[in-house]
Amino acid sequence: MQKIEVKIPANPQSSYAITVGDDFLDSIIPQIKTLLPNRELFIITDANVVKAGLLKKLTAGVQLPCYVITPAGEQSKHIGTITKIIEEMETNALGRDCAVVALGGGTVGDMAGFAAAIYKRGVPVIQIPTTTVAQADSAIGGKTGVDSSISKNAYGAFYHPAAVFVDVATLKSLDEKQFNCGLVESIKHALIADSDYFDYLQKNVDALCARQVKPLEYIAMKNCQIKVAVVEEDPYEKNKRRILNYGHTIGHAIESASEYEILHGQAVAIGIIAANIIEQKLGLNAKERLAQLKQLFAKLNISLRIPAKIKKEQILDILSRDKKAIGKWPRFILLEKTGKVLRDGEQYAYNVKREIVEETIDIILKEKY
Amino acid sequence: MQKIEVKIPANPQSSYAITVGDDFLDSIIPQIKTLLPNRELFIITDANVVKAGLLKKLTAGVQLPCYVITPAGEQSKHIGTITKIIEEMETNALGRDCAVVALGGGTVGDMAGFAAAIYKRGVPVIQIPTTTVAQADSAIGGKTGVDSSISKNAYGAFYHPAAVFVDVATLKSLDEKQFNCGLVESIKHALIADSDYFDYLQKNVDALCARQVKPLEYIAMKNCQIKVAVVEEDPYEKNKRRILNYGHTIGHAIESASEYEILHGQAVAIGIIAANIIEQKLGLNAKERLAQLKQLFAKLNISLRIPAKIKKEQILDILSRDKKAIGKWPRFILLEKTGKVLRDGEQYAYNVKREIVEETIDIILKEKY
Repeated sequence: MQKIEVKIPANPQSSYAITVGDDFLDSIIPQIKTLLPNRELFIITDANVVKAGLLKKLTAGVQLPCYVITPAGEQSKHIGTITKIIEEMETNALGRDCAVVALGGGTVGDMAGFAAAIYKRGVPVIQIPTTTVAQADSAIGGKTGVDSSISKNAYGAFYHPAAVFVDVATLKSLDEKQFNCGLVESIKHALIADSDYFDYLQKNVDALCARQVKPLEYIAMKNCQIKVAVVEEDPYEKNKRRILNYGHTIGHAIESASEYEILHGQAVAIGIIAANIIEQKLGLNAKERLAQLKQLFAKLNISLRIPAKIKKEQILDILSRDKKAIGKWPRFILLEKTGKVLRDGEQYAYNVKREIVEETIDIILKEKY
Repeated sequence: MQKIEVKIPANPQSSYAITVGDDFLDSIIPQIKTLLPNRELFIITDANVVKAGLLKKLTAGVQLPCYVITPAGEQSKHIGTITKIIEEMETNALGRDCAVVALGGGTVGDMAGFAAAIYKRGVPVIQIPTTTVAQADSAIGGKTGVDSSISKNAYGAFYHPAAVFVDVATLKSLDEKQFNCGLVESIKHALIADSDYFDYLQKNVDALCARQVKPLEYIAMKNCQIKVAVVEEDPYEKNKRRILNYGHTIGHAIESASEYEILHGQAVAIGIIAANIIEQKLGLNAKERLAQLKQLFAKLNISLRIPAKIKKEQILDILSRDKKAIGKWPRFILLEKTGKVLRDGEQYAYNVKREIVEETIDIILKEKY
């Protein structure tokens, strides 16, 4: 097992460790008990994780109070589920001296993290991500939240976990589509921070798809290192952390407009293509990368088709409500080159004219690139 | 106008100023605009505050988006109201670059603070408390939250305001019961921190009840100074901050059990009496103070009668779910003498035997003290 220490200089109490390894789920509860002695644990997971046998493996015969999010997935990621979780915690008479253990994908981690952040003004949360998306991205960095009926993560908090455990063996429980789409977050990390890593992903995509342990551990460490470096520098997303949103501005809008018919990773893949088109329109050297990206997404068997029901106006409307919007228009993260984000003076978020964004949306809707 | 600077050493970005004065409501929005330039403001208030004309005075003809909590009071302090507030903010297409202005009593401040804490992972909140409770206590210190169907402040966050404006002229809008009950928080501050202040309150209770400006400004400053000193030392209630809960453990339980038939200040007054009885049972010198407290509460015309529908078992059940409970039993703040909290080694929260608490509840239920 390997460890990465995350230090949040702005808030030293928020520092924590990420442990990466293969097939160690059954040793995690004892590790948590050592880390947080005397805290009662409450597990939050979902129906898919239970079905895959991961909850059983984690608890290894120990009886712990638990909330199973049903149905699994984005459709449960709303404030109503949080209310049910909080009331279940209260029914178990858990005080401020409890801790939440999140076992599952991004949805579970976001909801469990948010529930922990607001339960009796905050109890610790331990993240055990079990999907490619969550291991690469959502379990690290303290972003938590749930959707409203109007937009994604309308409710949320920055709330750092007390520990993260990344067990790559849990990824075997995923179906092919879910597994592959999750690798898009790894591609995003490579694009914004490390061109060598982008080369590695292009060369090892088949080994990754075959879920070989060594490359899975390699990218788990790589993803954590890249994300941690950014989060340490800017934990509350004042500026640099925004680079992690590469591909996410239009990606989120499409994901939301599709009513989660499109998986997060798939939406981000489309968002990355959209960012690439904007880069080209702004005269940046992005064309060669577009070909590489199309090839990568094809190998991962990720469809870039947007359902016909989604219209340009709908995407524009969602963009105007983007969390990072200023004056009701979002700013975009763009690449200067592979592995390096474009800067606008001191700012990493770029103000792109509405006209260019509209043209780009037309292009991605027609898949004409 | 007088100013108090609040510094939170554990989180320097959370420092802010409290401005205390008389009749300056109409100058606050311009002051906020200077403090937070370019932020769109969203006002949260309640039906009583609107009726009293305070919203009109604050906005002084400027049109600002607003949510009016209806009905005013504790019965609206639940997650459903937060959902409505968040959706109203989204309907106004407010981004992370907005700020919330809370105009009202403790309920408004707690809800607005919590909505601000969780809206798109946090936007600034400015507190303008308009009641004796809120000015003395709830607007300062960053505690926010709403109740669940099971317990008080089950949902919440520690979230410091960007500024607090205490205008004592707003207190003229309160009815006598609300005004007087709110003074219990001032009495609590005196009890835990300053015996001279306790003498002042005993001597000036009539002038305060007559709402004379000078004593109101005096106690506003005194309350802020006492609370700020405690909050600066322990912003996240790891230990010392618990002293602010004097009278609140049993007080909250009674308030909750009464389904908010009993006002917060009234419940805390009963809780202070309960703490005093526990102190006496533990052999502390508290008897003389009991007489002083009874006289003060009588002058304030605060009834200490608990509705007959409330049973001991119900209070004990709520106590077992207390946020500060450890092993399903709360700890109590007790006084060594007037102006000084009892310490148990390094701890300010005291473990009191269940037997003593049960006897105390019997006594306060029968008003036999």
